[in-house]
Amino acid sequence: MSTDSGFYSIIDYTVDGFDTQRELVAAFTEIQERWVRFYPGYLSARFHASTDGTRVYTIVHWASEADYRNFVETSDGEARMEAIRTALEGLSGRAEARMSGVPTYTVVGEVGPGPQRLGP
Amino acid sequence: MSTDSGFYSIIDYTVDGFDTQRELVAAFTEIQERWVRFYPGYLSARFHASTDGTRVYTIVHWASEADYRNFVETSDGEARMEAIRTALEGLSGRAEARMSGVPTYTVVGEVGPGPQRLGP
Repeated sequence: MSTDSGFYSIIDYTVDGFDTQRELVAAFTEIQERWVRFYPGYLSARFHASTDGTRVYTIVHWASEADYRNFVETSDGEARMEAIRTALEGLSGRAEARMSGVPTYTVVGEVGPGPQRLGP
Repeated sequence: MSTDSGFYSIIDYTVDGFDTQRELVAAFTEIQERWVRFYPGYLSARFHASTDGTRVYTIVHWASEADYRNFVETSDGEARMEAIRTALEGLSGRAEARMSGVPTYTVVGEVGPGPQRLGP
């Protein structure tokens, strides 16, 4: 029942305020530019910042699972993780990962605009 | 630095396996149809299911913050919350909310495909 053939990774952090939130987005922007955006099938990374300054979701969109797997297998994951650690240590405040399990996703459904469903 | 004028709510749950994950998506699909999709400015709800069966992110997209505020202020939030509670109780397994703080978001940045950034 997938509504698109895309494959996603979702990177999810709580942060301790607007400054840290802004710094985390800047840091992950640089991570994408230096480590991710040039792999085949990379489509986008979008940064969703909560309006209360407490959370950031980064949604990375790949054309296919095969493209994501190729990125994982051919990129230097250890160096990338080290760059992420360094970026997190450079924040003025605190950021805590909220990922659980395997951080890869497919879109399994979508509800568009429409009339209110009233019956069973 | 917002890259679109959209406004989002993100509903975030951990679940205890593929069956509960599928049931949660079905339940929130029905919630959207019965309680949300007919309000002005509603654009979509997309269900991101983790490939390991442990998590579901529902991303609800509104045309603007004003449209979201209108929905919150003019809809029957108490009845909707009761419908969500009933839906969660009807799951065969366990689902746990992972939201923190205010669950509303804007997209504050996006990185598209491009060459590897090598310089400073």
